[in-house]
Amino acid sequence: MAVGLKEPTALSPVGGVRLGTAAAGIRYQGRDDLVVMEIQSGARCAAVFTRNAFCAAPVTVARLHLAAAAPRYLLINSGNANAGTGDEGIASAVACCREVSALADCDIRAVLPFSTGVIGEPLPVYRLREGIPKAMDALAPDGWLRAARAIMTTDTVPKGTSRGTRVPGGLVTVTGIAKGAGMIRPDMATMLAFVATDAAVAAPALDRCLGSAVKSSFNRISVDGDTSTNDACVLVATGASGTPAIESLDHPGYGPLREAVTAVCTELAHAIVRDGEGATRFITVAVSGGVTTEECLQVAYTIAYSPLVKTACFAGDPNWGRILAAVGRAPVDDLDIERVCIHLDDVCIVEHGGRSPGYVEELGRAVMKRPEFAIRVSLGRGQEDATVWTTDLSYDYVRINAEYRS
Amino acid sequence: MAVGLKEPTALSPVGGVRLGTAAAGIRYQGRDDLVVMEIQSGARCAAVFTRNAFCAAPVTVARLHLAAAAPRYLLINSGNANAGTGDEGIASAVACCREVSALADCDIRAVLPFSTGVIGEPLPVYRLREGIPKAMDALAPDGWLRAARAIMTTDTVPKGTSRGTRVPGGLVTVTGIAKGAGMIRPDMATMLAFVATDAAVAAPALDRCLGSAVKSSFNRISVDGDTSTNDACVLVATGASGTPAIESLDHPGYGPLREAVTAVCTELAHAIVRDGEGATRFITVAVSGGVTTEECLQVAYTIAYSPLVKTACFAGDPNWGRILAAVGRAPVDDLDIERVCIHLDDVCIVEHGGRSPGYVEELGRAVMKRPEFAIRVSLGRGQEDATVWTTDLSYDYVRINAEYRS
Repeated sequence: MAVGLKEPTALSPVGGVRLGTAAAGIRYQGRDDLVVMEIQSGARCAAVFTRNAFCAAPVTVARLHLAAAAPRYLLINSGNANAGTGDEGIASAVACCREVSALADCDIRAVLPFSTGVIGEPLPVYRLREGIPKAMDALAPDGWLRAARAIMTTDTVPKGTSRGTRVPGGLVTVTGIAKGAGMIRPDMATMLAFVATDAAVAAPALDRCLGSAVKSSFNRISVDGDTSTNDACVLVATGASGTPAIESLDHPGYGPLREAVTAVCTELAHAIVRDGEGATRFITVAVSGGVTTEECLQVAYTIAYSPLVKTACFAGDPNWGRILAAVGRAPVDDLDIERVCIHLDDVCIVEHGGRSPGYVEELGRAVMKRPEFAIRVSLGRGQEDATVWTTDLSYDYVRINAEYRS
Repeated sequence: MAVGLKEPTALSPVGGVRLGTAAAGIRYQGRDDLVVMEIQSGARCAAVFTRNAFCAAPVTVARLHLAAAAPRYLLINSGNANAGTGDEGIASAVACCREVSALADCDIRAVLPFSTGVIGEPLPVYRLREGIPKAMDALAPDGWLRAARAIMTTDTVPKGTSRGTRVPGGLVTVTGIAKGAGMIRPDMATMLAFVATDAAVAAPALDRCLGSAVKSSFNRISVDGDTSTNDACVLVATGASGTPAIESLDHPGYGPLREAVTAVCTELAHAIVRDGEGATRFITVAVSGGVTTEECLQVAYTIAYSPLVKTACFAGDPNWGRILAAVGRAPVDDLDIERVCIHLDDVCIVEHGGRSPGYVEELGRAVMKRPEFAIRVSLGRGQEDATVWTTDLSYDYVRINAEYRS
């Protein structure tokens, strides 16, 4: 069902990072479901986590460990989210970290756990314990694509991409993998993304770089706060490229690196939407002419999450009244409907608060039959804009989510 | 598909109110689609309208007329919402009011127009003009049920109910009809409700009575602000009962009247949910133990509008992780998950932030297979509570909304 999404063919290794996978039989049979990502000593690591109050046990443990020590190993499992599991879940996550730290002879706090899968079932620690040595034996610089496959849950296509960019002193690589989720699959829980670069980056600059990239990528496919219990995105900078350290946001390497990281995150975020449950359309909702970015986002989200707009997109039906009604109920004060214009790709459907005089339904229908199109709204009251990406709402969405546990 | 919803058998006439219907052929053939509701001179009228910035032409006109004169006639059509129709739509609504006022020999501002149906198509004024004299010829005190049928769009069952209550000086009647809509059908646009009583009520008390009733009924089946372009609810007090006027909120008749009006509005609101598109479940989401009513509502709405919770309800699957995740992402500051309890009817599924020790899936499944059940959440941090009502999300919801215009 994935819309315009192909399996990545080549993911560039990142100096200082090795990945190993194993089939631990946590939930799935005959496939890898466990990943160990090894990060060389001296690397920096930034991370953002779910804001869900019911965050999963591994999120709690990863946050604590990240605050206490520099990460050396990321341990990721699919098939079980270790969420809604209380104190026992915390103990399970810690036990798995201990297994890695014992084998690697490192501080347990240098191991960060990540889980994705079913909520509310105990993590089968013994299976992870059996799988961890196998995954560590398999550690290799070219393990990215295998890792992208191992973290999949309801994904139909593994998600990964690479970029190279020039910073002072040479070329650096950015490679990332993701699975999920986001607002599309908050149940099978979890948008997970792991991005690494061989650039050397100081901690505050790395934090800002990740925050900036996530803001315009993963956070644009999910309503603010509409996070799952397990969402996490990690950015590792190993410094293995040998290029001078990017110590601050003023450093001439910061801009290029941020752009490369943002490009990787955006492609991964789009891949998540394209692989959305039951998706038959990849829809860009672009709102411009707002007084603030925030109000543009509010309008964009109101459209993107309207079940009526989404079912119309599924039907390929240019039912513009639904888009107009969504704009009208977005929480924007004093919206002057006389100034609002709405386009489907380059077809103007609404202007001055009503149907565009030149609009005929065939034009709108032609756009909405495309697998990828944009809903563009101009508010006509300011200079800001914002873009989000979403899917349609299909029979398959209901089928997948109604039958998922049956 | 309606869940536990039967056609009303008897709607009590309200002294001072007559209703007439006609088949004007606005969109539907072989059924009434036009209603004139006549209100005796001297009656009071309160109304609440959509907050959608793209409000329909009849809403604009009705607001203006209501501010200028005491209503004598309500003119309601189904099949066309007269929304997204610009200045021409305003002119059309005014022309229809003029037709009524000419026949009735009253001020045009004493006529309030209401429309529901397809958005963005011109109102066929000539058809309404032809139908209006027929509807006025048919005016009768017992026209309520015919009117309830005539205002239906995608409704499968007409919606109406009556209550009697005692106020100082005698008995009064409250009768109401509704169609729609609300958050369930914001496209076919419109929750419309018309409620009348033969009590005598001063204007400020009538406004408060309607506001109070709507707040706990129609506004509990729709996200705050998630209104359609045409939503309206009108409360008429004719005074025909001859009981002394309820002049203020302190009057001993105010409480009983408010309770009766609230009961009528709540039953109508429930009927709208029960008749929701594709609905197979009637779900009560009751949140207690909040610091404020507002935060209880936020949690309740987050659950009620989660597509994942709704598809689980459709499947009859007690996938409690989805409910827990919805509670966790509701916009409530500093929620202590250790204090949260979740019940399905009387089955405890979550306590202390995790699965209840005594819970087994069969118990939850038994509840969720019921056509009507409650999701009860206790936040354990205060004394306030709030309840909303919603439906599941079924294949039929997608079918109805994807195929609606095809």
